[in-house]
Amino acid sequence: MSGQTHAGRVKEITATSNPIVKEIKGLALKKNRDAEGLFIAEGLQLVTFALESGWRARSLIYAKRMAGHEHLMQVAAKARAAGTDILEVSEKVLGVIARRDNPQMVIGVFEQQWHDPLTIAKSAGKPGNVIVALDRVRDPGNLGTIIRTADAVGASAVLLVGECTDPYSMEAVRATMGSVFNVALSRIDAIDFDEFKAAFPGRIAGTHLGGSVDYRSIAYGSDPWCLLMGNEQQGLPSILAEACDSLVHIPMAGRAESLNLAIATGVMLFEMRRDHLTMGEIASDGGKQA
Amino acid sequence: MSGQTHAGRVKEITATSNPIVKEIKGLALKKNRDAEGLFIAEGLQLVTFALESGWRARSLIYAKRMAGHEHLMQVAAKARAAGTDILEVSEKVLGVIARRDNPQMVIGVFEQQWHDPLTIAKSAGKPGNVIVALDRVRDPGNLGTIIRTADAVGASAVLLVGECTDPYSMEAVRATMGSVFNVALSRIDAIDFDEFKAAFPGRIAGTHLGGSVDYRSIAYGSDPWCLLMGNEQQGLPSILAEACDSLVHIPMAGRAESLNLAIATGVMLFEMRRDHLTMGEIASDGGKQA
Repeated sequence: MSGQTHAGRVKEITATSNPIVKEIKGLALKKNRDAEGLFIAEGLQLVTFALESGWRARSLIYAKRMAGHEHLMQVAAKARAAGTDILEVSEKVLGVIARRDNPQMVIGVFEQQWHDPLTIAKSAGKPGNVIVALDRVRDPGNLGTIIRTADAVGASAVLLVGECTDPYSMEAVRATMGSVFNVALSRIDAIDFDEFKAAFPGRIAGTHLGGSVDYRSIAYGSDPWCLLMGNEQQGLPSILAEACDSLVHIPMAGRAESLNLAIATGVMLFEMRRDHLTMGEIASDGGKQA
Repeated sequence: MSGQTHAGRVKEITATSNPIVKEIKGLALKKNRDAEGLFIAEGLQLVTFALESGWRARSLIYAKRMAGHEHLMQVAAKARAAGTDILEVSEKVLGVIARRDNPQMVIGVFEQQWHDPLTIAKSAGKPGNVIVALDRVRDPGNLGTIIRTADAVGASAVLLVGECTDPYSMEAVRATMGSVFNVALSRIDAIDFDEFKAAFPGRIAGTHLGGSVDYRSIAYGSDPWCLLMGNEQQGLPSILAEACDSLVHIPMAGRAESLNLAIATGVMLFEMRRDHLTMGEIASDGGKQA
């Protein structure tokens, strides 16, 4: 919040044809999200949490009938002072922006945050730290769920390798259940992964067709690790498999040929962080699964 | 295939308005699936596998340009002899049935199979066996992924407790990646869960807000277990929590408040089956994640 910050505008919008609404609605397309560097997050609790965590909102949008909500008004006033536009809109407008019936009553348009992969690598030296690297992940639900799981095990970052689905799509953001605001996101081309490896002070484990090592047989200990997971269809390409210090396998027993990518990532992460996750670390709100 | 089986009809359909197409298309709605006891599975490999596993198909539908496909013709001839209607259709018709662009070229309409919960319970005495029970699971992707994971760890059945999303919806079936044909499905009302418990020769573990036991601290050993997982939003209601022999918790470390239901189920299942899943059991096709 520099001295140059101007307070945001306050507008009331009821027409779905309003140009501001059209612009925000346009964030449903990746090319617009990329061009603007913005994304949409839904829900008062989540938007409040993001603002309090220092994420910058371009716009804060809420339903007109929420205008008397004390907490929301405080959040809006603070955001506005930091330069966020405040849009009081009809529920129809909210539905158009969220592209669903019964939309959340509060929506935030936030600035994307991308971290430099080499900085991520270099700063990952903390004992027991884990970074999750995903090769060409395609499904937004999988990516969002993996970001949520990475957060749950205390991983420091999720690195997207090659052409991945956008973590800032509405579907992916929804699947993160707020963890998109907790985990550092970064991206790198597959051919540059060696640079990440060179800068990373730990070891790299990949799951792979050719993996002959039981994923539970490695002493993950207190070293930093990067877990590298291959694409949903093809698994890791050789260029990435060769970058791994260990190629591991998750044994199965049934007739299923493979695990869902997010499940395999979750099983791996809980194993790699096994010694670091203890009951003493339970959050006070317990462990509800959603 | 009793002596009364009549060979199925063979029809060529190009109009999306054809009444047979309309009927199959109608299986997108749960009320029609329930009324007919049918569901849709997509893809030649999957349909072939299902037929070979003894699932009965009402119809086998394929694109006209597949008519020269030798393997498909053999599968179709065999299915027809067992009473399956064979429908040679336009790709437009396939797209309408699958409700997507670029649909699979082969679609099967199969008869649902529901197993009696008490029979499932009684026959679950095999050492190391696991049954997955899901309380009011809402998300079809979660349910499908859980069925796939249950299959991957060799669980014998998935029991749906109370009002759950339909495992035979197209979205759930897709997420199972074929495992819908491998895992016995059953359902029971929450108030009848005690009957299941009485018939089940093993113990019941639930994950719960109030769980004070680390999920890794239980000696699962060779007993049969039922893993009972609560609804995405609310977790287990007390009537079901009280039926559990152990209420466990999965410790977390980050800021995420909870795990996705399918991830929590996967982490639990790989822990419960830990001693039974060994590298010797790797399928010859390896462990690709998809």
